[in-house]
Amino acid sequence: MGVAYRGEAYHGWQSQPSGRTVQDHLEKALSAFAAMPVSTLCAGRTDTGVHGLNQVVHLDTPLQRELFSWVRGTNRYLPPDIAVQWARVVPPDFHARNWARRRRYAYLLLESPVRPALERHACGWVFKPLDGEAMRAAAAHLIGEHDFSSFRSIDCQALSPVKRLDAISITHRGAYWRFDVAGVAFLHHMVRNIMGCLVAVGTGSRPPEWMAEVLAARSRDAAAPTFAADGLYFMGPSYDAHLQLPEHTPAMDWLP
Amino acid sequence: MGVAYRGEAYHGWQSQPSGRTVQDHLEKALSAFAAMPVSTLCAGRTDTGVHGLNQVVHLDTPLQRELFSWVRGTNRYLPPDIAVQWARVVPPDFHARNWARRRRYAYLLLESPVRPALERHACGWVFKPLDGEAMRAAAAHLIGEHDFSSFRSIDCQALSPVKRLDAISITHRGAYWRFDVAGVAFLHHMVRNIMGCLVAVGTGSRPPEWMAEVLAARSRDAAAPTFAADGLYFMGPSYDAHLQLPEHTPAMDWLP
Repeated sequence: MGVAYRGEAYHGWQSQPSGRTVQDHLEKALSAFAAMPVSTLCAGRTDTGVHGLNQVVHLDTPLQRELFSWVRGTNRYLPPDIAVQWARVVPPDFHARNWARRRRYAYLLLESPVRPALERHACGWVFKPLDGEAMRAAAAHLIGEHDFSSFRSIDCQALSPVKRLDAISITHRGAYWRFDVAGVAFLHHMVRNIMGCLVAVGTGSRPPEWMAEVLAARSRDAAAPTFAADGLYFMGPSYDAHLQLPEHTPAMDWLP
Repeated sequence: MGVAYRGEAYHGWQSQPSGRTVQDHLEKALSAFAAMPVSTLCAGRTDTGVHGLNQVVHLDTPLQRELFSWVRGTNRYLPPDIAVQWARVVPPDFHARNWARRRRYAYLLLESPVRPALERHACGWVFKPLDGEAMRAAAAHLIGEHDFSSFRSIDCQALSPVKRLDAISITHRGAYWRFDVAGVAFLHHMVRNIMGCLVAVGTGSRPPEWMAEVLAARSRDAAAPTFAADGLYFMGPSYDAHLQLPEHTPAMDWLP
């Protein structure tokens, strides 16, 4: 299943005793629809405040229903800021996390002397002007396989800090900057920590080459503070093409 | 001043004893910044749930402060989903409503079998496919000066139901349709009532020529139900060019 959600009302993706997470709401809704307990496993956990556009989960069920009934039926039990987008039958050994070949995130950032209002919780904010070329030069240092310890939160449970970053593209529409980040897998807080450093470069606090120093230091202390969760969107995973799982959901056309 | 806000948390623009309106919050914030009572008058009242991108208000004050101090200072006292965007000095007889030459609205509509989640409260929703050409043909009947009684709510306080509609443009990006509506002035619920009829035509329930019949009937009973407030944005008024008042705010680039 692909799921879209707004992050600000939830304590992240991962199930917690509080029950106030996206996974808790999804599993409660699935269990209500299926009239039996249903548990899920996702492609990429998201933190409090982070939005999902095509979070992919897998589940095992003996229940036979039309695919769109799973979508519509589950959505009836979900809060209005979470909605299942699609459902597919996958091979029995499919694993939403382990089978993902690539993951994409987008970060939206308002550059304006005035804080966001209409787009509150949906973008980060800087009041100083940003230098796009400087940010692109800084981002280039991160592409490829590196030890990303400098961009890793202390709560990160990944086995290794070595990850491969495929691309960071930086564009803008009006006052909104958009950062598209693609890689195989990401450490906890990695995109938000990269964003903190890119903004430090973009506002001129640091030169672009500083990003190479931060990377080489392999220490969280070398990097800028973690940037706000508000502007971060998990765009979703990619799987082997033969699985034919949707990688596009309508809300992707909503973003600037 | 130009003001941007999300509508869903407020009981519309116009001040009420409850104090839960955008005007109430704005005047409270202005009064806190100015340390004296400040009252405002706006270019176009909006209903509960309707968003504002460049709502223009005027106010009289003896207080002398730099223009950007009015913006930043007032925003400090405003809730996070309302923000003053700009401030200008205007002629003493300026009147935000009476001097407006033209007003623009936008309506955003998701066409999808699945309801909105990420963009909850920010767009209307239809699950049936829409026919853009049919809607454009229907909209053409409304352009010009007409008696818009069929599109007028019973609560409307306008002196006359005769208004001039300058343009309705209908475009889309992905699954999101955008309706840009421009005119001199609008009746209460006029855009949402037009939207109800356009959707009836777009989904094939009615032919495009039905719009001419609805208009000619000059009766609310002839039209479709009022469409949801969620997707409606007051883009703002236009004034005489010599006043040089901003007509663009950053959030206009946020919308699809």
